[in-house]
Amino acid sequence: MVTREEAGALLDGLAAVAAHLGHWTEADWDRAPDEDIHSLVERLLKEEAGDVAGKLHTGRSRNDQVATDARLWALDATEDLDHGIRALQVALLEKAEAHVDALMPAFTHLQPAQPVSVAHWLASHAWALERDRSRLRDATARLSVLPLGSGAIAGCPFPVDREELRRELGFLSVSDNSMDAVADRDWVAELLFMASLLGAHLSRLAEDVIIFASPAFGFLRLSDAFSTGSSLMPQKRNPDVMELARGKAGPLLGDLVAMLATLKGTPSGYNKDLQEDKAVLFRAFDTLGTLLPAVEGTVRTLTVDEDRCQEALEPALMATDLADALVERGVPFRTAHEVVGKLLLAVEASGKALNALSSREAGAVHPELTHVDLARALDPVRSVKRRASTGGTAPERVREQLRALRERLA
Amino acid sequence: MVTREEAGALLDGLAAVAAHLGHWTEADWDRAPDEDIHSLVERLLKEEAGDVAGKLHTGRSRNDQVATDARLWALDATEDLDHGIRALQVALLEKAEAHVDALMPAFTHLQPAQPVSVAHWLASHAWALERDRSRLRDATARLSVLPLGSGAIAGCPFPVDREELRRELGFLSVSDNSMDAVADRDWVAELLFMASLLGAHLSRLAEDVIIFASPAFGFLRLSDAFSTGSSLMPQKRNPDVMELARGKAGPLLGDLVAMLATLKGTPSGYNKDLQEDKAVLFRAFDTLGTLLPAVEGTVRTLTVDEDRCQEALEPALMATDLADALVERGVPFRTAHEVVGKLLLAVEASGKALNALSSREAGAVHPELTHVDLARALDPVRSVKRRASTGGTAPERVREQLRALRERLA
Amino acid sequence: MVTREEAGALLDGLAAVAAHLGHWTEADWDRAPDEDIHSLVERLLKEEAGDVAGKLHTGRSRNDQVATDARLWALDATEDLDHGIRALQVALLEKAEAHVDALMPAFTHLQPAQPVSVAHWLASHAWALERDRSRLRDATARLSVLPLGSGAIAGCPFPVDREELRRELGFLSVSDNSMDAVADRDWVAELLFMASLLGAHLSRLAEDVIIFASPAFGFLRLSDAFSTGSSLMPQKRNPDVMELARGKAGPLLGDLVAMLATLKGTPSGYNKDLQEDKAVLFRAFDTLGTLLPAVEGTVRTLTVDEDRCQEALEPALMATDLADALVERGVPFRTAHEVVGKLLLAVEASGKALNALSSREAGAVHPELTHVDLARALDPVRSVKRRASTGGTAPERVREQLRALRERLA
Amino acid sequence: MVTREEAGALLDGLAAVAAHLGHWTEADWDRAPDEDIHSLVERLLKEEAGDVAGKLHTGRSRNDQVATDARLWALDATEDLDHGIRALQVALLEKAEAHVDALMPAFTHLQPAQPVSVAHWLASHAWALERDRSRLRDATARLSVLPLGSGAIAGCPFPVDREELRRELGFLSVSDNSMDAVADRDWVAELLFMASLLGAHLSRLAEDVIIFASPAFGFLRLSDAFSTGSSLMPQKRNPDVMELARGKAGPLLGDLVAMLATLKGTPSGYNKDLQEDKAVLFRAFDTLGTLLPAVEGTVRTLTVDEDRCQEALEPALMATDLADALVERGVPFRTAHEVVGKLLLAVEASGKALNALSSREAGAVHPELTHVDLARALDPVRSVKRRASTGGTAPERVREQLRALRERLA
Repeated sequence: MVTREEAGALLDGLAAVAAHLGHWTEADWDRAPDEDIHSLVERLLKEEAGDVAGKLHTGRSRNDQVATDARLWALDATEDLDHGIRALQVALLEKAEAHVDALMPAFTHLQPAQPVSVAHWLASHAWALERDRSRLRDATARLSVLPLGSGAIAGCPFPVDREELRRELGFLSVSDNSMDAVADRDWVAELLFMASLLGAHLSRLAEDVIIFASPAFGFLRLSDAFSTGSSLMPQKRNPDVMELARGKAGPLLGDLVAMLATLKGTPSGYNKDLQEDKAVLFRAFDTLGTLLPAVEGTVRTLTVDEDRCQEALEPALMATDLADALVERGVPFRTAHEVVGKLLLAVEASGKALNALSSREAGAVHPELTHVDLARALDPVRSVKRRASTGGTAPERVREQLRALRERLA
Repeated sequence: MVTREEAGALLDGLAAVAAHLGHWTEADWDRAPDEDIHSLVERLLKEEAGDVAGKLHTGRSRNDQVATDARLWALDATEDLDHGIRALQVALLEKAEAHVDALMPAFTHLQPAQPVSVAHWLASHAWALERDRSRLRDATARLSVLPLGSGAIAGCPFPVDREELRRELGFLSVSDNSMDAVADRDWVAELLFMASLLGAHLSRLAEDVIIFASPAFGFLRLSDAFSTGSSLMPQKRNPDVMELARGKAGPLLGDLVAMLATLKGTPSGYNKDLQEDKAVLFRAFDTLGTLLPAVEGTVRTLTVDEDRCQEALEPALMATDLADALVERGVPFRTAHEVVGKLLLAVEASGKALNALSSREAGAVHPELTHVDLARALDPVRSVKRRASTGGTAPERVREQLRALRERLA
Repeated sequence: MVTREEAGALLDGLAAVAAHLGHWTEADWDRAPDEDIHSLVERLLKEEAGDVAGKLHTGRSRNDQVATDARLWALDATEDLDHGIRALQVALLEKAEAHVDALMPAFTHLQPAQPVSVAHWLASHAWALERDRSRLRDATARLSVLPLGSGAIAGCPFPVDREELRRELGFLSVSDNSMDAVADRDWVAELLFMASLLGAHLSRLAEDVIIFASPAFGFLRLSDAFSTGSSLMPQKRNPDVMELARGKAGPLLGDLVAMLATLKGTPSGYNKDLQEDKAVLFRAFDTLGTLLPAVEGTVRTLTVDEDRCQEALEPALMATDLADALVERGVPFRTAHEVVGKLLLAVEASGKALNALSSREAGAVHPELTHVDLARALDPVRSVKRRASTGGTAPERVREQLRALRERLA
Repeated sequence: MVTREEAGALLDGLAAVAAHLGHWTEADWDRAPDEDIHSLVERLLKEEAGDVAGKLHTGRSRNDQVATDARLWALDATEDLDHGIRALQVALLEKAEAHVDALMPAFTHLQPAQPVSVAHWLASHAWALERDRSRLRDATARLSVLPLGSGAIAGCPFPVDREELRRELGFLSVSDNSMDAVADRDWVAELLFMASLLGAHLSRLAEDVIIFASPAFGFLRLSDAFSTGSSLMPQKRNPDVMELARGKAGPLLGDLVAMLATLKGTPSGYNKDLQEDKAVLFRAFDTLGTLLPAVEGTVRTLTVDEDRCQEALEPALMATDLADALVERGVPFRTAHEVVGKLLLAVEASGKALNALSSREAGAVHPELTHVDLARALDPVRSVKRRASTGGTAPERVREQLRALRERLA
């Protein structure tokens, strides 16, 4: 349908159009009378190449072209997103590598529970992000499907070699059904879900940092560059970036809902409703494109106050270790738990530190306690070392974990 | 920690507990005083096996156990879901195989656009469902990760062989970080997203069926078993199941939002908030477990009224084919489109059928039209045959497509 | 704190700043180095009025000021929104007034159910919109609450007369608690809910119009200005505006979710997360500001094809009327329903029209049918007249209803 | 249509049916073969009262009846909900009344900002809840609209006195349009929005309590009844109820989304999709019915640790008060802020307490500081007293506020 000569004229013309548009100002774009970018290009092409411009549209319709363009955009955008997530993971990893032997309390219910390596806490967020990248990779298989050659809905009446198109445009596969191809926006919903769950992860990291950087905790100190003070209260470090990271989980979820609710109940084939896909997709990627580097910078520049972390390791956090020591001496499990519970209560009442108790005082709660080396049983370093199963917080396990993470990020 | 002998006693005891619970009535369950299923089992086990029951909990905490149990449940449930989707796909496929040569209008904007094979329309929905199954498979890699052996948060202080546990319980991999493992509910969100997008697909199929089965269209007729009438209006066939399928996209989306909003902003480690995961997960799977067979039954038992479909193929649907015929005769693309447009308007005004026009009448609009075989150019069978690129509606392409689909469903 | 003279200088300065900013181009705004609009104004004011500019901020903090500004914006915006909704209602009302005596089928389950006045259908959408306006009015009471004078969080340390401020700024009441006042974004959520439910109403109207304007129904014909065709298929009228109206219900719902999810779990006091409020609020109001006039234009310019509506009134729609006629003749209710059901089935089988049946043929189904005037019982005009209870479709009730609606819109 | 005698028979019969159903077990309900509750009642009524039972349905259809029943249920449920909210407000109020003179830091960005009365903080949550009750009252006007007498869609063909029905059933008004009346589920969405925003309020209160009860803050101590410990760590008080309150904001938002997404795009008239309304509505009200008393109990039984609150009032919180003191002495506003900032930094570096600084040391930062009574300027009691504008935290304002709140709750 298109001769080699015509093809050459079209390609030259398109190059000229691209060069021309490269010089356009915002105002030029506003002034353009065309219905959409496709009409605009065809009009300019006609000015450059004459009537052959009318052949540009051969074998394609607006429906399959729009679907193809959007997927091409998203293939680039997801690659950028992957880089952005990885950069944040690297920041977490490097911060973790610097604090493998520093200890802090791990919390359940925001109550201190057990000592862990600071690196273990930092890495826990990096692993969640690793799942986001894994989801993104999986989504690509469904994103990288070529709709071009599906016509408006029923297929293309010209002998288009779609396999060749796929190769040229770098898609992984070709769509199987033209009706489905022009109306499939699953991949938009899938990317938005991915963005929304990533947003939830960032919000959880943000919540940790906001709380741990609050003076009452004092585990972390944000850099000047990634916090806000005031001339009046220069010691104040408002964690603005982290609050935005926590807050943005809302709009990212909203964008996902927008797309899924839009899809709901539309009849098959192309419907104008589907046009909503681009605004929400662009918005979500813009949000993450701004947010990820900001969170990365915050992590990269924050300081861990190892002393405050250490001070927070009250002996009660080693209660399970003490109970385990009793169990090792033959005290039944449930009894050991009750004994330690009583001991903690007694100590709390006395105002004495648990690890400052004499053997005799301890023995008053349960005779077997006289034989337990309290200082050793309540040593947080030992407690951490004991958690040496895969994925545990023991230093060698954490080092192993960080190596594994680094490999994933290579 | 547990001798071979004790292990035997525990296994025998658990078997006895299982047998015992098998006889429990609803009332027995209501009467049980235990905090949760774990305490209940341990209590009954003690009655059966004595103090060794206290060793059941060795090397595990409630946090990693709950996370493990939920994943085990989901691994089964996703397999069932996969079967449910596949059954619906098979129903669509078989219905499609019965109607490859029947034609109907394809719609864009709910306006008739071009003729397609009825099979092409039916298969378009099956391909969307194929993506759902693909997503489900991908999600499994992240679901099938063993948290057991992570302790409450910091890892397990006993030398548990987590790799062995993984093999025994049939997981694909072992979690890398204990803090992340006990609080990771990503897989719940991912399954709920999958359910929600599947819900959107069912709602789109439902919308098609509701509209096509409405008397004004009359393309489809629902079976008595999957529609509701009344003694008064027995000819009425309310598509209740399809309306529920359309409506249920709402609650399924709600369940996804519930989970993602719950995760947002929770600090790391286990927090009671996470307990919300099970109610929404069970609910969504229950909904789909009921919905999928009902939709499958509806599809399986519906009748395609090929005559009504055929009648709806007004000549205007072949407008592009006629324009292409002019283009083949050397009329420029844009001119050809305008000529056909004028012809259609003229015919509409005259009240005559387009394909009943004489060459002379047509020639009055554009001379080249006198040389076009109108009846041939406007033949829907030919129109469909022309869409022969991959994924198009031409009969041989549709047959190819159905074979490909059948292979995927094997 | 501020002398009368200083106040004069500040007012003059602010007027000068306003005049100055009135001439700013987009580029000027981009170039401004200030942190936000407040710093910008204060900087310019200093250039105009000198050091007294520093007193502009007396008795207020950024937190209460931002909250006040946003509410002032919203008070205007909600008034515009009310006008936009009302304009659409007026369009529906006027179209209804033109078609009180035209009949069409009303649908349940998209199956024709009973005849109604076309006006009754049109007005049903106007009544839903009336609830939106009622919600908007109610929301205003909670929106029109003045936060100014709450300081950053603890209240204002200067003897500000907040009642006077309220009067000056036109608020209805003054906030009761400064901590609540600076962090209260309920009114944003409430307006977004209102917008979202309005969006659902527009989507339902759109769905009706899309279906009724599809050729298979043919009840409505969209104007050229509010539909899209093509040079190739000029008879096609794609209901683009209505599809956008249906689709936009998705993003509007997304915006509501964005806000509510953002609020979830934030600690009390001002947190940066709250800053998300403005983007979603502006977006939702922009959407509605564009959508409402487009939907209004579509309604105002659509044509009702009374003939197609009339043709669709098949006798089966009057089945209940016929059953009622039998009941009046003493046939028990359930029996009457069964008799009419049988008659309809018999007629369907025979291919004859129900109202073309002779008394004898009818009597074969049930003797009492011989005494019923079938033509009268099955007359749609009579059927409609019978529904004369308040809110029913009888012409006098519809006229009454339209008068009531007009009064509400006065 | 129904004679006085028949009416008597129907009423007696219904009473008998009610008595009968009162004795039904769960199993009886499961065994009932009827399609729905309406068919069941009619069947039983026939057993009691004979054929006259067939007249029960006179003048009503399932569509208007279902809509009426659901509204009747909701009118009761909203009253209960109002009581539940009020009970929580009373608990907050009473706790506040006990701590008017106790001071604590107020936070912005989770950084300590300024001292406030503990009562001020507690009351801030009660005021947010007051808006929820106000919304609930407003919603009632749109809920309390009678649909009965609308027939299936077109209105009622019998001379039903709808005004009389309204009075009998206790509705505020009568629906205006039968098509709208049978498909209007706005009130469900509105109640779910109300529930969702209430959920957000509870989640914010919960977040405060969880953080303030965490040992690092230590402002609050939860009672044993409303927290969870373990035999091993008896000093641990997991704020389970508050975590559930925070988490439940997710499902409550999900329920709102479920309803709005279900409504989206449904054609007018009754569609089976609408049936989703009840499950989500019941669920949301059940959730709140359980949650509100639990949160109320937590508030009622928590202890404020006034000493820990007091200790947290570091002098930097009075920085604005000190700056104001300088402004009063003629130092320009911006300069005063910078001076105080420098002073705070100097003090932080020296390790000395701000209020322990001598006049001379202070004077080294700015001469005017020598004349300021630092101890007085930095006194938190004075700081709080200064915030005496309406809604401020000054004791007399707080007392006024609590009185106003008590009046609202009377």
